[in-house]
Amino acid sequence: MSALSTNATRGDHRVVVIGGGFGGLRAVRHLRDAPVSVTLIDRRNFHLFQPLSYQVATGALSPSDVAYPLRALFAGSDNVRVLLADASGFDLDAREVRLAPAGDESIPDAVPYDTLIVAAGSSYSYFGHEEWREHAAEVKSMESAIVVCSEILAAFERAELATDPGARAAELTFVVVGGGPTGVEMAGQIGELARHTLRHDFRSIDPTTARVLLIETTDRLLGSFPASLSEKARRGLERIGVTPMLDTTVVDIDEKSVVLEDGQGARETVPTRTVVWAAGVQASSLATTLGELAGGEIDRSGRLTVESDLSLAGHPEVLVLGDMVRVRDADGQVQTLPGVAPVAIQQGVYAGRLIVDRLHGAATAPFHYHDKGNVATIGRGRAVVDLGWLRLSGLPAWVAWLVIHIWYLIGFRNRLFVALQWFFSFVSHGRSSRLIVEPDDIDVHEVPTSD
Amino acid sequence: MSALSTNATRGDHRVVVIGGGFGGLRAVRHLRDAPVSVTLIDRRNFHLFQPLSYQVATGALSPSDVAYPLRALFAGSDNVRVLLADASGFDLDAREVRLAPAGDESIPDAVPYDTLIVAAGSSYSYFGHEEWREHAAEVKSMESAIVVCSEILAAFERAELATDPGARAAELTFVVVGGGPTGVEMAGQIGELARHTLRHDFRSIDPTTARVLLIETTDRLLGSFPASLSEKARRGLERIGVTPMLDTTVVDIDEKSVVLEDGQGARETVPTRTVVWAAGVQASSLATTLGELAGGEIDRSGRLTVESDLSLAGHPEVLVLGDMVRVRDADGQVQTLPGVAPVAIQQGVYAGRLIVDRLHGAATAPFHYHDKGNVATIGRGRAVVDLGWLRLSGLPAWVAWLVIHIWYLIGFRNRLFVALQWFFSFVSHGRSSRLIVEPDDIDVHEVPTSD
Repeated sequence: MSALSTNATRGDHRVVVIGGGFGGLRAVRHLRDAPVSVTLIDRRNFHLFQPLSYQVATGALSPSDVAYPLRALFAGSDNVRVLLADASGFDLDAREVRLAPAGDESIPDAVPYDTLIVAAGSSYSYFGHEEWREHAAEVKSMESAIVVCSEILAAFERAELATDPGARAAELTFVVVGGGPTGVEMAGQIGELARHTLRHDFRSIDPTTARVLLIETTDRLLGSFPASLSEKARRGLERIGVTPMLDTTVVDIDEKSVVLEDGQGARETVPTRTVVWAAGVQASSLATTLGELAGGEIDRSGRLTVESDLSLAGHPEVLVLGDMVRVRDADGQVQTLPGVAPVAIQQGVYAGRLIVDRLHGAATAPFHYHDKGNVATIGRGRAVVDLGWLRLSGLPAWVAWLVIHIWYLIGFRNRLFVALQWFFSFVSHGRSSRLIVEPDDIDVHEVPTSD
Repeated sequence: MSALSTNATRGDHRVVVIGGGFGGLRAVRHLRDAPVSVTLIDRRNFHLFQPLSYQVATGALSPSDVAYPLRALFAGSDNVRVLLADASGFDLDAREVRLAPAGDESIPDAVPYDTLIVAAGSSYSYFGHEEWREHAAEVKSMESAIVVCSEILAAFERAELATDPGARAAELTFVVVGGGPTGVEMAGQIGELARHTLRHDFRSIDPTTARVLLIETTDRLLGSFPASLSEKARRGLERIGVTPMLDTTVVDIDEKSVVLEDGQGARETVPTRTVVWAAGVQASSLATTLGELAGGEIDRSGRLTVESDLSLAGHPEVLVLGDMVRVRDADGQVQTLPGVAPVAIQQGVYAGRLIVDRLHGAATAPFHYHDKGNVATIGRGRAVVDLGWLRLSGLPAWVAWLVIHIWYLIGFRNRLFVALQWFFSFVSHGRSSRLIVEPDDIDVHEVPTSD
């Protein structure tokens, strides 16, 4: 076994961060001016702005609009190195991260650390029906979002060619599973695509007749929002041609149809070729791996319980964060925080600060999540916003949604303007689209271990 | 067999166009106001601005920057319909285009025509070494350009991880085969990527040490340009770190290396993981299909010889154009025109005009190509331009190159500004990135039948 030799240009303390998502990235950014050497490991060469990946899935944005090369983010930070590799396990005693074999013996298979941050994210859960993955698409990773975009557009193309009315209707039926923010936003985007973007594009079919079904098991959409906003979201979706189906459960999916069961137990088979899955959460398998190594508690969604400072019980040098963990609060109660970017961002910053505090011998207060609110967009000019002290819907909420996302994008080197600036980057040496999208990895059934 | 029923909203004369490249597109645009009904058949749902696809292959542009959805181009033309299908053959007597089976029996397998335009383009030729396709990448189709981009970036990533100096050097060696415009531009872009874009991105390797070899069988680059500009291109490439290897032939390619042979017959094995192929032309197999059906002449590159009005001998109702044909001139001499966009554009316009003339009973003069000149870019601020009456190199040539490409892009609904306008299209209903990139079709070995 060969371990990576670290080239610590500053500081002997080696921090290894697994995952270049919101949590990992914020931790690294916090540490780039600290007296440590940082190694960021990710399976992708880019950070994905996941809250907008559903827009890639409907062609509203290009992949490069919602991704940023990790190397470009840290090109100026000499104490940060990026490794494109797949973390597959740990040796907690030797303090090493194991890498999956890269097929080249000269590539190291272990990376030593003094402090480890694991922020490997989650994937969707199919509630024990792994066979459904084969027939459902997702928008969680860049590759799967690209696939969803192609699948939706291809369904309209097949409908245009089909002469059988039944086949045509099946092609024009889109089923989105999961009434959370991603499902709501995705269903709304498909509705707008059919009703507006593609309106005049076909000759045999009328795209505005497309059915978009949004399936939600509970009795309302956006369960994390106040009930009044859930109801506004439902009505907003109906206005743009989406049919929200509440109290409805998916009981089967195959390549030709979805079987739904309503609250009374009545079943309906819906012929469809396009199912978008946005339900359930399954934490990265690295959570279970760590739990087994250190004897930590794992919940039904595969999330590991960590201490109030995000550390693994018995291993203060291992910090785990994001939607792969539940956090014990200062009173010892286990909290399940929402799987959203703000939680990961705050935990990433916390982990970075904790490491710096420890180097200075300072104490750090337990992690505390500051919930700034929830936003979800429904369609053009429509959204719902819940800031606790303020609830908005309709156009004001949509403007707020836009401002909030622009704000976060601007946090990422004015990403909103990266696409606007492509002409100037074309004239200079800049490149906005450096994404490694391995064709073999473009697979709807993919389970990302880090995103 | 079921034939497509045409929904001619204007005119009973049915024109079928195969291929949404430069030639097919111009023909359709010329016919959209004519009293005919047009069916455009392509395997892709977008037109590719192929002269810039090499910039996708180096991450300088996003796929959506150099592609435009065919449906969006003709959404306002009621007499034009677009079919996403694969034309596989013809019944010249029945006047029908055969479509490859789509896996759905309700989809027609034939499209009837009164006039047929075949503009199915070409792919690269491997000079009888089909086994090389497996190890070489291309930039001719969108899918292959995306793959090349990933391969080049992945090679730098593997080099960063590799500890063996030999493996590292092989990863940092890039071989471009073919010293025509595409090869020159591709090699220049890789040079710039290594020397500038990635300069500060790595910690173990120095990207500026990457070797970029440009292999050309003849004694100069850009054979279609004057010798003085070829020499300027060679020196320009050397200045950005590219090594042009003239009088050099590729004699073998495998997954680990390329074997080169110089003019004296001396062989050298170059370890490399990345070979970009930009040599030779193989016309669409539809050229051979038509030649066999109508007894037409096929040359070594698979090009069909057509009459001076672009028609198939004995079949005035079948027009074939672009880089899949050679054209008999007014004197009966067979001309081989360069495989560039201006030839296809002029032939597409000619074909459209010919059809309109025929409907009016008017005669059309034989096709004549107006050569407006040659341009090729070498790197940032460097290009060569040959307009016949004017030869430019360096910065003035590069500015001319930029203006010419912007001009053609503007011809495509201000495409240059499509990316600049993404924010506005985000606010409105527009989408600039509606590309169907089938994951299964993303394959380096792909032979496009129409582009």
